[in-house]
This record gives sequence, structure tokens and C-alpha cells, in this order.
Amino acid sequence: MTRPSGRAPDALRHVVLEPGVARHAEGSCRIRMGLTEVLCTASVETRVPPFLRGSGQGWVTAEYGMLPRATHTRGDREAARGKQSGRTQEIQRLIGRSLRAVTDLKAMGEMSITLDCDVLTADGGTRCASITGAWVALHLAFRHCLKMNVIASMPLRDQVAAVSCGLWQGEAVLDLDYDEDSKAQTDANFVLTGKGGLVEVQGTAEGEPFSEAQLLSLLKLARHGTEELFRQQRVAVGIA
Amino acid sequence: MTRPSGRAPDALRHVVLEPGVARHAEGSCRIRMGLTEVLCTASVETRVPPFLRGSGQGWVTAEYGMLPRATHTRGDREAARGKQSGRTQEIQRLIGRSLRAVTDLKAMGEMSITLDCDVLTADGGTRCASITGAWVALHLAFRHCLKMNVIASMPLRDQVAAVSCGLWQGEAVLDLDYDEDSKAQTDANFVLTGKGGLVEVQGTAEGEPFSEAQLLSLLKLARHGTEELFRQQRVAVGIA
Amino acid sequence: MTRPSGRAPDALRHVVLEPGVARHAEGSCRIRMGLTEVLCTASVETRVPPFLRGSGQGWVTAEYGMLPRATHTRGDREAARGKQSGRTQEIQRLIGRSLRAVTDLKAMGEMSITLDCDVLTADGGTRCASITGAWVALHLAFRHCLKMNVIASMPLRDQVAAVSCGLWQGEAVLDLDYDEDSKAQTDANFVLTGKGGLVEVQGTAEGEPFSEAQLLSLLKLARHGTEELFRQQRVAVGIA
Amino acid sequence: MTRPSGRAPDALRHVVLEPGVARHAEGSCRIRMGLTEVLCTASVETRVPPFLRGSGQGWVTAEYGMLPRATHTRGDREAARGKQSGRTQEIQRLIGRSLRAVTDLKAMGEMSITLDCDVLTADGGTRCASITGAWVALHLAFRHCLKMNVIASMPLRDQVAAVSCGLWQGEAVLDLDYDEDSKAQTDANFVLTGKGGLVEVQGTAEGEPFSEAQLLSLLKLARHGTEELFRQQRVAVGIA
Amino acid sequence: MTRPSGRAPDALRHVVLEPGVARHAEGSCRIRMGLTEVLCTASVETRVPPFLRGSGQGWVTAEYGMLPRATHTRGDREAARGKQSGRTQEIQRLIGRSLRAVTDLKAMGEMSITLDCDVLTADGGTRCASITGAWVALHLAFRHCLKMNVIASMPLRDQVAAVSCGLWQGEAVLDLDYDEDSKAQTDANFVLTGKGGLVEVQGTAEGEPFSEAQLLSLLKLARHGTEELFRQQRVAVGIA
Amino acid sequence: MTRPSGRAPDALRHVVLEPGVARHAEGSCRIRMGLTEVLCTASVETRVPPFLRGSGQGWVTAEYGMLPRATHTRGDREAARGKQSGRTQEIQRLIGRSLRAVTDLKAMGEMSITLDCDVLTADGGTRCASITGAWVALHLAFRHCLKMNVIASMPLRDQVAAVSCGLWQGEAVLDLDYDEDSKAQTDANFVLTGKGGLVEVQGTAEGEPFSEAQLLSLLKLARHGTEELFRQQRVAVGIA
Repeated sequence: MTRPSGRAPDALRHVVLEPGVARHAEGSCRIRMGLTEVLCTASVETRVPPFLRGSGQGWVTAEYGMLPRATHTRGDREAARGKQSGRTQEIQRLIGRSLRAVTDLKAMGEMSITLDCDVLTADGGTRCASITGAWVALHLAFRHCLKMNVIASMPLRDQVAAVSCGLWQGEAVLDLDYDEDSKAQTDANFVLTGKGGLVEVQGTAEGEPFSEAQLLSLLKLARHGTEELFRQQRVAVGIA
Repeated sequence: MTRPSGRAPDALRHVVLEPGVARHAEGSCRIRMGLTEVLCTASVETRVPPFLRGSGQGWVTAEYGMLPRATHTRGDREAARGKQSGRTQEIQRLIGRSLRAVTDLKAMGEMSITLDCDVLTADGGTRCASITGAWVALHLAFRHCLKMNVIASMPLRDQVAAVSCGLWQGEAVLDLDYDEDSKAQTDANFVLTGKGGLVEVQGTAEGEPFSEAQLLSLLKLARHGTEELFRQQRVAVGIA
Repeated sequence: MTRPSGRAPDALRHVVLEPGVARHAEGSCRIRMGLTEVLCTASVETRVPPFLRGSGQGWVTAEYGMLPRATHTRGDREAARGKQSGRTQEIQRLIGRSLRAVTDLKAMGEMSITLDCDVLTADGGTRCASITGAWVALHLAFRHCLKMNVIASMPLRDQVAAVSCGLWQGEAVLDLDYDEDSKAQTDANFVLTGKGGLVEVQGTAEGEPFSEAQLLSLLKLARHGTEELFRQQRVAVGIA
Repeated sequence: MTRPSGRAPDALRHVVLEPGVARHAEGSCRIRMGLTEVLCTASVETRVPPFLRGSGQGWVTAEYGMLPRATHTRGDREAARGKQSGRTQEIQRLIGRSLRAVTDLKAMGEMSITLDCDVLTADGGTRCASITGAWVALHLAFRHCLKMNVIASMPLRDQVAAVSCGLWQGEAVLDLDYDEDSKAQTDANFVLTGKGGLVEVQGTAEGEPFSEAQLLSLLKLARHGTEELFRQQRVAVGIA
Repeated sequence: MTRPSGRAPDALRHVVLEPGVARHAEGSCRIRMGLTEVLCTASVETRVPPFLRGSGQGWVTAEYGMLPRATHTRGDREAARGKQSGRTQEIQRLIGRSLRAVTDLKAMGEMSITLDCDVLTADGGTRCASITGAWVALHLAFRHCLKMNVIASMPLRDQVAAVSCGLWQGEAVLDLDYDEDSKAQTDANFVLTGKGGLVEVQGTAEGEPFSEAQLLSLLKLARHGTEELFRQQRVAVGIA
Repeated sequence: MTRPSGRAPDALRHVVLEPGVARHAEGSCRIRMGLTEVLCTASVETRVPPFLRGSGQGWVTAEYGMLPRATHTRGDREAARGKQSGRTQEIQRLIGRSLRAVTDLKAMGEMSITLDCDVLTADGGTRCASITGAWVALHLAFRHCLKMNVIASMPLRDQVAAVSCGLWQGEAVLDLDYDEDSKAQTDANFVLTGKGGLVEVQGTAEGEPFSEAQLLSLLKLARHGTEELFRQQRVAVGIA
């Protein structure tokens, strides 16, 4: 079996993390996974959503967007259409949940951090790349807060990264690009922590249902792929 | 360990499927799982979305809603607020995908079926109940089309049903009610086919990440629970 | 003359009021008039709209909705379309006004009650059924507040119920179903109090204008019909 | 009894109808009733709404608006707020229905006329003034179509006009201004045809319910008031 | 060269300013320039936008609208469409900026004035007519505030007026009507103060680019035209 | 006088044009002017807006957006807010007009090109940078169409570029950055063609009105600045 991209089944695309690229943001990271390119910024604000006021606790949330021509054919600009698609909302909820899973919200105190993940070029795996890059942006933003004495200790308890896997002609392959994604029978996104815990598993059969054994082989690949992503995150924030 | 509801870890809530309750719909089913109650209707229309015109293929889609006072405290009416929440859109996309996974869209010819899943009372597990009930409504709608000679053969290739599982004090429990759901460390929804295939797996760590072993124990419970749901679906459509 | 439904000109459809059906609401009632079925819930909230803050006075308001497949052919889901139709807004304003007409808002103190009237099956007369059922839900909600010592006395001063009448081949008939409504020359809705007062009269000529004499014959039928509705309301709330 | 305006109970305000004031419209009329001033234009378009295509039948519809400072204190601009209020939609539906009641839609052929009723100054009775003025605009637009040979005969079968009445200290009074309207116990709008038929009756108890006798005394005043309005409409269109 | 309107190149259309036409507004002016007719009202409110709270400073803003049949063919009602066009927003921002340029916001104290400019008939130059008329309405509103002792001195430091100019067959002409505007190669709007300063210059080449010399000849005409407008403004507010 | 940036009055910021950066677009250019960074893409589509169907003529339009954290403090995401601001709409209309001014729409045939200008980092002058960069993207897109034989000749008749100028302490300075822009008395944007023609002039007095002489000195600087921009555009598209 040769997968469409020609990569080995367990090969990630070329990954580049560029920390600190956004001039104004407290933390930022541009992540490239092959052709996919996402700009992640972390913005610190001193107020929290209404349901947390007076709780002494902070909040981490995310917004996701795609430039209209990030894709092969131009998509509608969501601002012009007047609403975010269901897909966009689903993705930004996932990113927010994933980052909160490794953040000690109490240690933040009452402040909010918004992670903006904007896709400059899309070639599959944009939600996973967003999570991986957003962790770097968030780490740098907390580092900034520490330096400013806004917080006393680092609220991040662990790393978090994500990767997609899929079944191609029955075999599990890692890190699908757009072409592979559209041909895969099953598409699964795994969000994992640095310590190996599962934060989120989303597996969807595009055609035939998949089996428990296949789910486990996908998860195995995801562990393998995120190991490399965790290593690069540590390099990017200088804790390697 | 006693779970909050007092049920055994592998016990479903009391399940009732009432087929044919909606006067005007081509297919319908009211499903109760404990206090949760969802009205599912299937509406047949003779046109398909633009991307399928001329393809000879049909489409199955879903919309989901919740009556404002289905919940403990009244929620906003989405029609009055002027938009559907991200959660609503995420759920209706899941329901649509799940039903399409067991439907032969080509065998439908160019027609659409919309599954409306409206929650009359919410007590946890509304998205899973919607999928289980919608399958019955869809089956009855196809039966109606067969009788009307609109289609030549039943386009449903298999059954599909869903159930939520969670980790309660570290142990896997089946079919969470609202109270259990809000206390669980991990919440997972499994959509399975009658033949045992996985259509969708969505696991989310609410607090601590979960392990592969825990994911498998949740899946095992889900298989056990959906067996009973499949049996009741067959009774409801009269193919038991 | 035989009207389309075969009923006598002064005959109501079969009426069923089921109080207390909604698990979470402070008051509720499912009303069936023939095939028409509306779920009415009353939700108590401790804040009032801005224009009443500090006034010591309460507020009663209503929202109205229709499940997409409550009707013969599926209608758009208003939440998905992003706005409520003019018809929906007109109806919910009428329901709110009608209930406030028999409520002593001062006796409520500063609290609000929202009546949600959701049509599960539509076969004509949904706005009238909503008013009649909402009165029961509101009564039960106030009863709940009395029991909780939130209010000192029952703020409802009278009963209120509504019924539609119409001219069929020149003759006045009571309680139109959908088929009769679409064939009637004139359609009139009457909202009456238990003591016989008029709260709202809405008569519309669909084809030929109607005469004063015809208006009076419609009103006479409405009095006859609401007598029976008032009796059933009293039974439903246990003050018969 | 002296009513707030000092007018006799059966006295209309000073009425002025100015036909043909809008430069570009096929028909137009500015109507003043006391301080209330509404600009009504009729715009002819050659297409009909989808539900009438191919039917050979025309359509008459209305839109209603109020300039932000037509009122004592400035109101929101509905275009800026992004939606029309329920009140606006209710009024424009009423205007459209009232005009259609005296129009032979078949005689129009497949064309549409939109009546725009924009309130320049509001002092009570704007919906009634809109109907009375819109009839003149519609008549002139049909006259224009006759002259252009777009239609063969006048599709208006009768006149239609409207007036509000109310109960002031228990007595019926005609044509309420804003101050009277806000003090009246009951407010009723009557839409009548030139031949004396009722097209629409809308009576609402603001405080105490009203009686059948009171409804009839309000109707009697409305007949008296619309007689004068019909006379002035005929003068305005030159058929007196 | 004869321009389409037959006017001399430096001739304004017939200008009429009617101050005080709006019953309820603190200041108002109806302006006609040829067939173009705009109703300008100034509404005083005691609160300021959030960014000015506690600043001791006031605010002047504008909203612009067009009645649907102000134009040759009926346009959409922006309130019904649910949003203001880009053109509308651009114009109302320009009007607000122009009036603020001659207002001492500090001298106002913390209050807001909203200028509503509603086009009753459009025949070119509506944004310029709005600015010229709005100045009169604003002056009268400040006069009202002085009389009410809400402010101690007149916050208007100068007059402001606007006029459009264009290139017709290469020659500069003043005050374009709709027909001329649609044929001009270049269209420019100039907002000038009574003392001759430039507040806003907006020149747009519709076809061929224009030269610096042409820009200056357009500006010269604009100075000539606004001289007359300033004179009429002074007459309208009684300071001639 | 030293302007805030320390640059000479007639000095542009450092300008970088990177053509072809967007993987999927038919034409693209990233433009940096100092810290300001805009990504411009040109997307070719085979259909035209309704008003051009059957005309044999093409269309060029633009959309503009800003990433939420392109600015010092995070702004709302317009897609999440559900509408584009007035400022956004004004800018995208300006970009579209400017590019159409140098395009022979007839030579395009019936096709559309949409220019998306997305601001990655904002430090003043984003609308001008968008125009300058969009011209490069448009040129490359047309080049692509020529190569594909979709069009027979280059529809661009000239270059177009834009730059902002302002008055700082009474003196004219070129190419304002954000800090300078917020301190300038007058802000003017000039859109010029390669042959020296004016396509658009927009001058706005932020405080004191400006004089004709000042307008001319700003224009002189703009000519100087755009000369350099035109040179770099030619290099970017390889026609230097």
C-alpha cells in the first residue's frame, strides 16, 4: 500500500512551529504542517465571562477562522455572510476545551485568554494544527503574564497536541492531508496530553463503520505523531 | 461504588419508543430514556440540496432543537435570539452524519429526508436519544415511500443507535442522566450500527484525561447498551 | 348546511387539558382541541424587564413556536432561518396581552412569568388553544409561588380563554379546524374572561366583508364555546 | 365628559389627504389626521411572489416604517437594529390584508403593488391613517396602469378606510390621538368598506374587559368616522 | 457645452431650507435641492456612548436612511432586509464626522445629539444635502438646549455645508442631479466650513482618472456653491 | 520638526512586496509597509453578479478583513459578531473601485475576480497597502488567465497604488503609521495611477479644517510615495 501522499503510514508531514510571530499579541505561534498553515495568537484580557465573575477563576477560549482563499476554491467570508458555520463553531469549541483541559483555571485568577486560530492555507488537519499551535501561543502568553507579575505560577499543567489519523484502504495512516482526508474511509482526531492521557477522541466513519481494532491502531499512530509534536512545542517555548 | 442514579453501572434508563406519534410526518417516533423525551419526525421532500441536483442521489439531514423549558431553568428560544448555538449545530450535524452512515443514498433517488429532533424534556443524553429515535422515524418514512412506490427498495442498510457513557469515580457507567453527566470526569458518546461497527466515537475529558483502557471499558458498555436499543428499534418498526 | 368537519355549528372539537405535564416548569398544561396539540409551560424568573425595575410590579409575557413538522408540509425552523415570522410575533403578543388582562401585576411583586406555547401538532386554532392552555399553566405557576411563599395571594383575577369562529357558507360555526379555516369567508378570534368580558376581538374577512349581525352571531358562538373551556380549565386546576 | 383632546366624542381630527406627492411612485398620498402624518406610496413591479407565479393573479402587499424621530422621544432605527419589531410586522400585515380585501387580484394580472407607509409624525392612529392613505395611493397606481394599458379595468372593487375608537371614562370616543390612546381603557381599530362591510375588527381591552354593548357603540362611531374618510378619498382621487 | 440639466456650470439647483418642520424633535430642517428632499432631525439625549462616560464631553452622530420609494425604482427597505448597506453606513459616518468638525464637544457637556437624515425624494446629492440640512437642525437643537439652560454657550464654532461637483465632458459643473451624476466622469463631494476650511474632500474617478487641475476647478465651484448654502443656513436659523 | 516615527517628511516606511505567497489563489501578494502586513489574494470565478449577466463584461470586487489580534488590543471577530462594521464596508468598496478604475472590464469577458485583503498586522495605512498589494495579486491572476487562454489580452490598463499622508504640526508627512495617524490633524488617502492620474482622493480633517494649499502639499507627497510603490509593483510582477 502506498498512501496518496507517498508518506510512510506513520509519517507526519513536515512540521514548523514559529513562536512569537504576531507583533501585538501576548503570545503567538505560526504552525505549518505540510502546506497547512495556521496563525495562532493568545490575547490576554482582564475580565472574565459573566458566569465566572467573582469566582477568582480564569477562562481560556478559542475562535477559529479561515481566510476565504485558504482553500482550493474561494469560500464565503463568514463576516460577510453574517454568521459562522456549524463547522467553525464545532472546531472553536474543540480548541477551547482542549486547552482548558491542561490549564489550571484557578491559578490564572480572574482573567481571560482568547486563542485566535486563523487558517492562512488549508490542506487538511487545520483543527489539529490549531490545537498544537495554540498551546505554544498560550504558553508564551502565560510566560508574559508571569513576567508582568500578573500571575504567580505557570497555570499550564501539561502539554496538549492533536493529530488526525485515518483509514486508507483499510490501513491506518497518520496526519492526513486534504487529498487523503477526502479519500479516507474513517477520519479520527486525537487530542493527547504530554503525559499520554486522552483529552478528546473524535472518530467518524465516512463510509463503512470501523472496528474497535481499527480505532486502536489509529490511536497508536496518534501517540506516535504527538510525541514529535510535543518535542517541537518544547523547543518552540524553550523548555526542551 | 453507587452511581448518583442508583442504577447498576451497566444499566440503561427505562426506554420507551413510540412510533408514528406525529400526525402529519411520513415517519415519527417519540423516544423516552428516563426523563429525557425527544420527538423525532422524518419529512420527505422531493428536492435535494444544490450539490446533489442531477446526481440521482438522495440526502438525509437533521435539525435539532430544545423547547425553552425542556431544562431545569428556562433557556433562550433560539428563534427569538436569531441564531442556533454552536452546541445545537454540532448536535444536528452529528445526527445527520450518523443516519447517513447506514443509508444507501443512491437507492433513495433524488429526494431528501429531514429528521427533526425536538427535545420536550431534557435530562441528559438528548443527542444519543435523538439518533436512536430518528432511526425509527427514518425507517417508517422509507416504509411510507416504498408503499407509495416512490422508491423500489429499502435504502436503510443497517440499524444505528447511540448511547452516552462516562467515568464516575473512575468507573465506567452507562447512559448518564443530567446529574451524572455534570459530575462525570469523562463523557463519551458512541454511535454504533446493528452489526457492531463504529460510526462515531466522541470522548471528552471533563477533568483529568482518560486512558486507553478506560476508553475501551466505555466502549464495552456502549455495545451492551445499544444491543437493547437495537432490539427496541426492531420492535418499534415491527421487524422484531 | 353541513360544515366540513361534520360537527354541529356550535360544537367544539374534543378538548383535553392535561395539567402538570412538563417536568421542570413551575406550571404547565398540554391542550388538545381535536388534532391541534399545544404544550404550554410557565417559567418563573426573579427579574423583570428594564422598564419595570423598581416598580414593585411583575410581568407576564409569552413566546410561541411551532415544531417544523407540526404542519402538513414541513415548515422552516425559525431558529435556523434566524428570525421569527411576523405571524409568530403577532401571536405571541396576543397571548401575552390576553393573560396580562386577567393578572394583577402589582400582586405579583417584581417577578416575571414567561409562557411558552409550542405547537406539537397544528390543525387550526393554535393561538386560541395556546391562550386557553396558558391560563392553566399560569394558574399552576402562581399556585407554586404561593406554596413557596413568594407571593401572598393569587394574582389571577379571572379566567381567560379563547376560541375561533368563522362564517361557513354564510353561517356562523364554532372552533374551526385547519380545513374549515382555509375555506371560511371570515375568521374571528375571541378572547373572553370567565365573567363574560371581552379581552380581545379579532375579526378578519378572508373574502367578502362581513356584517355587524354576522359579527354578533360569531361572538355568541364564542361565548358558548368558552363556557365549556372555562369549565375544563377549572377542572384542570382543581377549582371546579 | 370632556375627552382629553376637547373634541366631541364623535369628532374626527382634521383630515388632509394630498394625492400624488411622491415624485417617483406610480401612486402616492400624504395623509394627515391631526398631527399624525403618513406618506403612502404605491410601487408597481412586474413580478409576483413565488407562490403566485404562473397563476395569472396579482398581489398587493404593504411595508410600514416610522422615522426614528416621528415620536416624542427618539426610537431605534429598525434598519440599524437589524430587524423589524413585532408591532411593525403586525401593522404591515394588517395594511396588506385590508387593501387586498377590496382588490380583485385576478383583474390585476401577474404584477405586484407594494404600499410603503412611512410615518413622518406620530400622534396616534398611524396604522389606520396608513390604510386610508394607502387606498388613495393604490387607486392612483391602478389608474396609472390603466393609462399605460397594463391592465384593462380597475381592480379596486370598493373603498377601504380605517379609524380607531376607544373607551374614555366608559364612553365611546372616535379617532384617538396619542394622549387619548394611552389613557383609554379599550382601543379598537375598525377597517370598513365603502359599502359598509367589515374587513377587520381589532378590539383590545387595555385595562378592564369590555362588553358587547360597548363594542357596538365603538363600531357605530367607526361607521360615522369612515363615512367622512370615504368622502375625502373620493375627492382625492377625483371621483367625488 | 450644455450640461444635461441645462443649468450653467456654476449654478446650484433651487435650494429651500425649512427649519422646525418636525413636531417632536429639538431641532429639524427639511432641505430641498431641486427634486432631492431630505428631512433632518436633531434628537437630544442625556447619555453619551460608553467611551465618553465620565469625560465631561458630548457626542454628535448621524443616521441616514432612504424611504424605499424615494428612488426611480423601489429599493429594498433596509429594516426588512435586516441590515444597512455599505453605502448607507459610509454616508452616515461622513455626516457625523462633518458635523463634529464644527462642534465643540467639550462645550456640550455629557449629552448626545443624533442627526437623522431621511431622504424623502432622491435626485442626486443626498449626502451633501443631508450635511447642509443637518447643520440647521443641530443649530436649532443647541438653541433649544441654551434656552433650557442645559448648556451655557453655543457649541457650534462654525457653519458646515456640502456640495457635489463633477466633470461633464471634461468641464467642471456644480451640484449634480441624479442624471448628471450617472453620466459624470468624476464625482466629488466637498464639505466646507463657513470660514473656508476643508473638512472633507472625496473625489472618485468613475471612468478616466482626473488631474490635479481638474480637482482644483471642482473645488473652486464647491466654494462658490457653499457660499450660497451658508447664506441660506444663516437665514434659516435667523442669524443672517 | 521631527515626526513621531523619526522618518523624513517624505519618507515611506520599508516596503516589501512578496508575490505568489498564497498556495491556492490564482494571484496573490503579501505587502508589508513597516509593521503593517496585508495578505492579498485574487480569486477567479466564472460567474458574474446578476446585473452583468449576458453583458459580456467582467467584474472586479474586494473584501477586507482584519484578524482579531492584528491590532494592539484584540478586536471583535466580525464573523462572530455577525456583521461587518461600517469601516470595513467602506474600505472594501474603496479597494474594489480603485482596482476597477484601471481594469478594462470588457476585456475580461464574463468572469469575476475577488480580491481578499486580510490584515495580519495593523500599524496604520491598511487600506492603502491593500490597494497596492491587490494590484499585484490582480495582475498575477490575469497573467494566469492569459496562460490558461481564458482571456486574450491583459485587461489591466495601468498600475494603481495608494498611500496616506497627513498634517503633523502643520507640516505634510508621507505614509502615516498608527501612532502618527492618531496624532495627525488631517488624514488623506490618495489613489493614483501609474500615469499620474487621480483615481480617488479622500481627505478628512480630524481637528482643524485644512486649506487648499495643504491639500496640494499632501498630494505632492503622495505622488512622490506612489512612484516608489509603482516601481516595486513592477518588480514584483516582473515587468520592471
